[in-house]
Amino acid sequence: MSSFTGPRVGMVGAGQLARMTQQAAIGLGVHLTVLAERDDEPAVLAGADFLIGAPADGDAIRDLAGRTDVVTFDHEGIPPELLVELDREGLRLAPPPAAKLLAQDKAEARRRFAELGFPVPPNTVASTLGEVLEFADLHGWPIMAKAPRGGYDGRGVWTVGSEAEANELIDQIEGDLLLEPKLDLLREIAVVAARGPEGEVAVYPAIETVQRDAMCRELLVPAPIPPDLAEEATGMGVAMAEAIGAVGLVAVELFHTPDGLIVNELALRPHNSGHFSIEGADTSQFEQHLRAVLGWPLGSTELTAPAVVTINVVGPEDGSDPRERVPEAIAVDGAHIHIYDKDARPGRKLGHVTARAETVEKARETALRAVGILEGGTP
Amino acid sequence: MSSFTGPRVGMVGAGQLARMTQQAAIGLGVHLTVLAERDDEPAVLAGADFLIGAPADGDAIRDLAGRTDVVTFDHEGIPPELLVELDREGLRLAPPPAAKLLAQDKAEARRRFAELGFPVPPNTVASTLGEVLEFADLHGWPIMAKAPRGGYDGRGVWTVGSEAEANELIDQIEGDLLLEPKLDLLREIAVVAARGPEGEVAVYPAIETVQRDAMCRELLVPAPIPPDLAEEATGMGVAMAEAIGAVGLVAVELFHTPDGLIVNELALRPHNSGHFSIEGADTSQFEQHLRAVLGWPLGSTELTAPAVVTINVVGPEDGSDPRERVPEAIAVDGAHIHIYDKDARPGRKLGHVTARAETVEKARETALRAVGILEGGTP
Repeated sequence: MSSFTGPRVGMVGAGQLARMTQQAAIGLGVHLTVLAERDDEPAVLAGADFLIGAPADGDAIRDLAGRTDVVTFDHEGIPPELLVELDREGLRLAPPPAAKLLAQDKAEARRRFAELGFPVPPNTVASTLGEVLEFADLHGWPIMAKAPRGGYDGRGVWTVGSEAEANELIDQIEGDLLLEPKLDLLREIAVVAARGPEGEVAVYPAIETVQRDAMCRELLVPAPIPPDLAEEATGMGVAMAEAIGAVGLVAVELFHTPDGLIVNELALRPHNSGHFSIEGADTSQFEQHLRAVLGWPLGSTELTAPAVVTINVVGPEDGSDPRERVPEAIAVDGAHIHIYDKDARPGRKLGHVTARAETVEKARETALRAVGILEGGTP
Repeated sequence: MSSFTGPRVGMVGAGQLARMTQQAAIGLGVHLTVLAERDDEPAVLAGADFLIGAPADGDAIRDLAGRTDVVTFDHEGIPPELLVELDREGLRLAPPPAAKLLAQDKAEARRRFAELGFPVPPNTVASTLGEVLEFADLHGWPIMAKAPRGGYDGRGVWTVGSEAEANELIDQIEGDLLLEPKLDLLREIAVVAARGPEGEVAVYPAIETVQRDAMCRELLVPAPIPPDLAEEATGMGVAMAEAIGAVGLVAVELFHTPDGLIVNELALRPHNSGHFSIEGADTSQFEQHLRAVLGWPLGSTELTAPAVVTINVVGPEDGSDPRERVPEAIAVDGAHIHIYDKDARPGRKLGHVTARAETVEKARETALRAVGILEGGTP
């Protein structure tokens, strides 16, 4: 028997991102252990080794670190103060806490991005009605109010249209609110990059992300925008990964406004906007994240087709389960179906479909057809 | 909570084929349970659910069938008589035992293929020295002798060059030997197809397989042969899948001789010659096998690049472990590395590398470079 113990990666969180990381880990011979809250989470059902514990449970993360070479994350919901403490104890965390904080705290991120010279929307932090009104006076109604921590997929974000609405929100929310004007958006762009611990950076082509009901629903790759704008976007992704000292995947969400590109927010982990890369790029974002956190050379980010489109599968309103319809949807030629094995609930992300083609339009048509079937439409 | 219980596939065997089937199963939301002999086999390490039992253990297979919708196989080493018995009891087996037998018993396969009208080499079954000498008189030395059951990767196959060698082999072997002339081979071709329970068939482009030390080492796709020969080969694959009533993957190994194509042998499961399809085709052979055994529509078998080459990683003579060298090998751009997580032994298949390119030569160069590093050569 060989004494080889494979490269071992620990991941806090066991959702679909950890599930797809497990799939990539199998190919590379990497042993993934996830910190799950329950034993029916997507990554556990996919067979990743697991420990049960909350993401705020320091001892569980210490246990995870003791079994692995490096600890990384499939979400942002680990208390930043705990990460600082674990880092001080010498745990190998990827990304390091100072970088991770910029994906965890929107107010802190705004401050730091501006300091680093990245374009950000006008913003302020408010905790009183007076402060909200002052900001609205300056920028006009409606304004956007965001909880600095804990929001995702539209949760923790409010459009505030009047003094009355502002009053109601202030009453309802404890703590600070990050305020921004409601921007005039031409589109949203995401840039996915990866950075290794020694500074190597690789970036995927710019992605247009299409939101519905404040949730990312479609990825169009390459983003159908002029080449110079695409280059500016990917350049911002690379600069961001370097400036903040990220280790692992970096997803930067950008607003394309009439005044140019503005940084919205950051994820420091594999991200919805990178799902296209499983079939659509030479190296998937999940393999790339594993390579980066292990300090391995990064892989090619070239597209495998002229156009790649990914569309999320979301739980339909009637509560029916898209898993029941996989056998029909899979008949759509060229549609690559990914099922997260989560129980169906209306509005919940349950999977995604990727298609490759000569044009974004054609790829979108294929992906939409399969998603339509999965979500319960007629084929 | 939904009452959905996903599609459940049982697989007898837990080697690299089951491991890569587990990887495909995650994407589709299919729950794979393998029958493993030990808990450190490749599919178990990849997180497939597992039962421990020998492939000859009928009760273990019954247990597996009780937990799943259909039972399939990652090898040929299940006693054919046991499969017939389980089939009679009503277990859903894919492929059915009568088809599987043709991948398990070379003598039976030769007889049946000839009966079905497929070209096979001259052959006979012998158990005495006299019978061997009679065959050699007819076809000349050397002749090939094969154990009808249980051989793979060159095991159970002998080149017999003289009466003395024949005598020695007869003394050493219990039971029958299948005899064939040593054919003049131009090359070996493999055809990988899949058939669903209702008769739907899909076939991948013809594959040239390159053997070294009687083990498949390289796959060149599409096989660099004239189009009419490639079409004849894939046509034979489809005809074979249909004629024998296969369900699931069918890999047909063909000899290309100066007299044309001849059927060598068959595998009724995912097969080494189909590994290129993970990155190289629109649907991997592992996903295709799952679709076929579940009775789902089959996927597109189109290549994702003009040329795809896969090269096996084999344990080097010095006993060193290719897993130690993944971080260097992965730096080869465009090389897709698959590690089976098996302990290194000289001559053992431990992984494979696939590369896509504009030409077979270019893809081969990339794959060879990575395999060279993994097997301990200098980069």
